[in-house]
Amino acid sequence: MPNDRPTNHEAISELTTGRLSVYLRCLTYLQSAGYETVSSGDLAERFHLNSAQIRKDLNCLGEFGTRGVGYNVPRLKDHLIHELGLDRIRRVLIAGAGNLGMALADYGGFNGGGFEIAAIIDNDETKIGRKSRSGFEVLAWDDLVAIVREHRVDIGVVAVTADAAQKVYDAFADAGINAVLNFAPTQLRARPGVKLKSVDLRINLESLSFYLKNVEDDGV
Amino acid sequence: MPNDRPTNHEAISELTTGRLSVYLRCLTYLQSAGYETVSSGDLAERFHLNSAQIRKDLNCLGEFGTRGVGYNVPRLKDHLIHELGLDRIRRVLIAGAGNLGMALADYGGFNGGGFEIAAIIDNDETKIGRKSRSGFEVLAWDDLVAIVREHRVDIGVVAVTADAAQKVYDAFADAGINAVLNFAPTQLRARPGVKLKSVDLRINLESLSFYLKNVEDDGV
Repeated sequence: MPNDRPTNHEAISELTTGRLSVYLRCLTYLQSAGYETVSSGDLAERFHLNSAQIRKDLNCLGEFGTRGVGYNVPRLKDHLIHELGLDRIRRVLIAGAGNLGMALADYGGFNGGGFEIAAIIDNDETKIGRKSRSGFEVLAWDDLVAIVREHRVDIGVVAVTADAAQKVYDAFADAGINAVLNFAPTQLRARPGVKLKSVDLRINLESLSFYLKNVEDDGV
Repeated sequence: MPNDRPTNHEAISELTTGRLSVYLRCLTYLQSAGYETVSSGDLAERFHLNSAQIRKDLNCLGEFGTRGVGYNVPRLKDHLIHELGLDRIRRVLIAGAGNLGMALADYGGFNGGGFEIAAIIDNDETKIGRKSRSGFEVLAWDDLVAIVREHRVDIGVVAVTADAAQKVYDAFADAGINAVLNFAPTQLRARPGVKLKSVDLRINLESLSFYLKNVEDDGV
């Protein structure tokens, strides 16, 4: 009876959320490969995860699996989709139609599987009216409030330069957007109730730098 | 005597590396704000981290702090820079001069503080010779091997479409690049000795979706 205990949301930190996303990817892969059940040990070994951590995380969701059988793959996958709120559509507005904003508008993961690009906006008149490769037209920054209302935007993406990012975050908050993803390399002041998540792409390079240093230090 | 134990590299997982990058950002901020020392408890509280985890991670690096005083901010920062291999220059080659590749070439974090963009390459003749906003000229894909040798490239970035990504990874490996950062939304087959790190930007949207779902479920 894996689902009869309510989910303990307060026990689920942001780090756990990242792991739930990883589990979801693993289960999606396993389902497409025809697996019906999987144990925490299998999951850990196949995807280089920690089996005790998997059990702890899934316990928090009220998923216990069946002793000797493991977790039911499609059911656990559906549960994770539900827990992550991916069983409804979230509309995403991108501010900034430079290279990054246009790349994000065309990025598969931002348009599908629970997310939908509502619009991309910019205050540069020469960019308004242009289209991204997948056909999103750049709208005017001045229409932000109307666009948020009309498209019922859930998530705002900050893809502008560092010096304009706080202004964009504040305008998103004023327009009634409750969750903001920031790609500008600067620290923003968040308002209560308007969740801010900043993406730091450099951390990925640092991880590779760490790997290279240890290979070099070991003289391999 | 915080540094007299050698670093235990095998105990440092990829997740830990990500946390070391986060600690480095915190310490950089604290140093710019004039702090000389910081305790694990202060670090945890200020930056919403876990103090036991901080102590454990820094113990792995041979950093123990001084009882009742804490860690020395500039020394710990320098130690993290050294451990992450950021005290030498890593040359980064970007394959793909579309919106994403051009955005990454101009992204501050990819050019500075231990990293340097060596070149951006593409096989689309209409893109070769174009310049990014910060002045990087797009070179020819066919010159990959010569560019890697001449610029002593350490890290290759895959910023091409999903269907071309494996070919680019393999060509990087053949050219002698030992670390690859993949932005294409596809699973690549990695070769032994050629470290692959894939960036999944969608995970950040899923984290915000989880937040929004819980706000809605709580009826706030």
